[in-house]
Amino acid sequence: MTRVMICGNLAWAQKECAELFSGLADVVVMDSPDRADFLAGLRPGGKYAGVVVLYRHNISADRIGIFDKEIVAALADAGIKWIAHNGAGYDQIDVYACKEKGIMVSNTPGAVDDATATTALYLMISTLRRFSSAERALRTGAWKAHHVAGEAHDLTGRTLAVLGLGGIGLRLAEFAHAFPMRVVYHSRRPNPQAPAWAEYFGADRLDEMLSQTDVLSVHVPLKKETEGLVGESMIRKLPKGAVIVNTARGKVLDEDAVIKALEDGHLGAVGLDVYPDEPNVNPRWLDFPNATLLPHMGTETYDSQKKMELRALTNLRDYLTKGMGSDLVPEFTTNQRPGL
Amino acid sequence: MTRVMICGNLAWAQKECAELFSGLADVVVMDSPDRADFLAGLRPGGKYAGVVVLYRHNISADRIGIFDKEIVAALADAGIKWIAHNGAGYDQIDVYACKEKGIMVSNTPGAVDDATATTALYLMISTLRRFSSAERALRTGAWKAHHVAGEAHDLTGRTLAVLGLGGIGLRLAEFAHAFPMRVVYHSRRPNPQAPAWAEYFGADRLDEMLSQTDVLSVHVPLKKETEGLVGESMIRKLPKGAVIVNTARGKVLDEDAVIKALEDGHLGAVGLDVYPDEPNVNPRWLDFPNATLLPHMGTETYDSQKKMELRALTNLRDYLTKGMGSDLVPEFTTNQRPGL
Repeated sequence: MTRVMICGNLAWAQKECAELFSGLADVVVMDSPDRADFLAGLRPGGKYAGVVVLYRHNISADRIGIFDKEIVAALADAGIKWIAHNGAGYDQIDVYACKEKGIMVSNTPGAVDDATATTALYLMISTLRRFSSAERALRTGAWKAHHVAGEAHDLTGRTLAVLGLGGIGLRLAEFAHAFPMRVVYHSRRPNPQAPAWAEYFGADRLDEMLSQTDVLSVHVPLKKETEGLVGESMIRKLPKGAVIVNTARGKVLDEDAVIKALEDGHLGAVGLDVYPDEPNVNPRWLDFPNATLLPHMGTETYDSQKKMELRALTNLRDYLTKGMGSDLVPEFTTNQRPGL
Repeated sequence: MTRVMICGNLAWAQKECAELFSGLADVVVMDSPDRADFLAGLRPGGKYAGVVVLYRHNISADRIGIFDKEIVAALADAGIKWIAHNGAGYDQIDVYACKEKGIMVSNTPGAVDDATATTALYLMISTLRRFSSAERALRTGAWKAHHVAGEAHDLTGRTLAVLGLGGIGLRLAEFAHAFPMRVVYHSRRPNPQAPAWAEYFGADRLDEMLSQTDVLSVHVPLKKETEGLVGESMIRKLPKGAVIVNTARGKVLDEDAVIKALEDGHLGAVGLDVYPDEPNVNPRWLDFPNATLLPHMGTETYDSQKKMELRALTNLRDYLTKGMGSDLVPEFTTNQRPGL
């Protein structure tokens, strides 16, 4: 029978997984302790032989590494046709290698929008209101000793700039609109799903947008083109006291540039859920009272994790039963290499 | 000339204060180090003689105490007609004594709605998502070591119960609706300004509401009738794992009952901005990883503080020029002692 491989954590939808593939495919769990064992398993006669579709979670990288050219080539040789990645960001998969080898890649875009946008909203409130440092003061018995009156601001009436308006950015825009904040955004092109109250700024007007921004929230995927995108040049175009929130990927920010701008007071605060070298956190961040720091929890809710697992598994099932699943990553639906 | 007294902090609208009363009244700042000096100043020929209207900030209690019967009587004898209190909660003023003595009392209700509701939203996100404990873990170098998968929840789809749907509760309801959460509420009577999607539960159906509640957010003023309102009986009617958020007044919660319910696991988490004996915080709260604790910062933003100061001063000016200001507290506009 056809085989489905579970490669990495499947925590909440195990029962549903058995039901989804019952009578359709056998489920095999990747149990390799290292990359060599994984690659051996994929060879003819190996323990993973016969696998056609694969569910992937980032945690598998702890044992077998990311899905680079070597792994993708081995998957293709083994006859694997679809990788359903559990997560919005799929930077751990070499999608161009997959495309070249005829392996399709899906992610779970919609499933994480709500939880990640809520995280960005939280970081925005925490930084503008100085709540994180206030709680730390209370917990040392200082009540509000370190709170500087006049440093905390309402969200209402301020301008949120969304860098990369996809599903997550759209959800955040809706939350911000409830205050209301003014919402502006920059993407490579206008998002046709954007509501009328979200003002688009193209590349030619990016500087104009930045100069009006109170909070810049980052929602672009990590690609070669976006690494270090939020760097010295972009930061200095923000007005003094602006706040940066990042729930996308750590490397989209130029860490040194952000730290420098916090040191010299150009940036008012920073809210981070992601870091360039997780789980390591640059200890310099801990020096700034006006930093709110979460350990990459953007999608970590019971509800979202289960939704993501089900979505990824359903894409595999649809491929097996209909020859095509949903949520193909943009590299498969456009001819160009996407920018932002 | 008529005199206006500034009794307590006026931090952001000093320039506007001078303009508002220019040519209309002299501004005198309360500078008494203690209650005896204050009372002496109010006597005929005293330094506060001639004051007709008074701006009040809670911080004045640090020196002269709250506005109890003794102070109210002295204010009445001095000829004071209006107390414009800066703040939504006016539990530090004996309004029944004021009413008896013919002194009107206003507060600044609308001005604090936005900032306080944002604080409640923050506490709701922090508790449901376990963000406060996650940040503490990160800051000790533990990344997400203490995070228990499955304990964090999305807001979307959960039920928010607003206890006391006034201006602050309404703002919070709007924020919650953006997710959307289901919004239910209990007040003494339905709020005619409540949107159709906010379902009202009267006293006869309060238990029914509590049994469906994921997050109970407290927005009733502190009065004799509301002290300890959220106690053992109400808490045990919430489903296991429910969250309580309090941005109103510490004494509305029965602290011992809440602590007991956290200890035995009946409550999932608690988010507090207020405490019964501020600035003292019961150290027991610090024992619970699932508690988010802010030092009473609900209205502490530059924007809201300035809005409140202007609103209070404007009420005094309106009384002087038109014989009537706005924002009279409910005790002056209803004949009954209000309950919730």
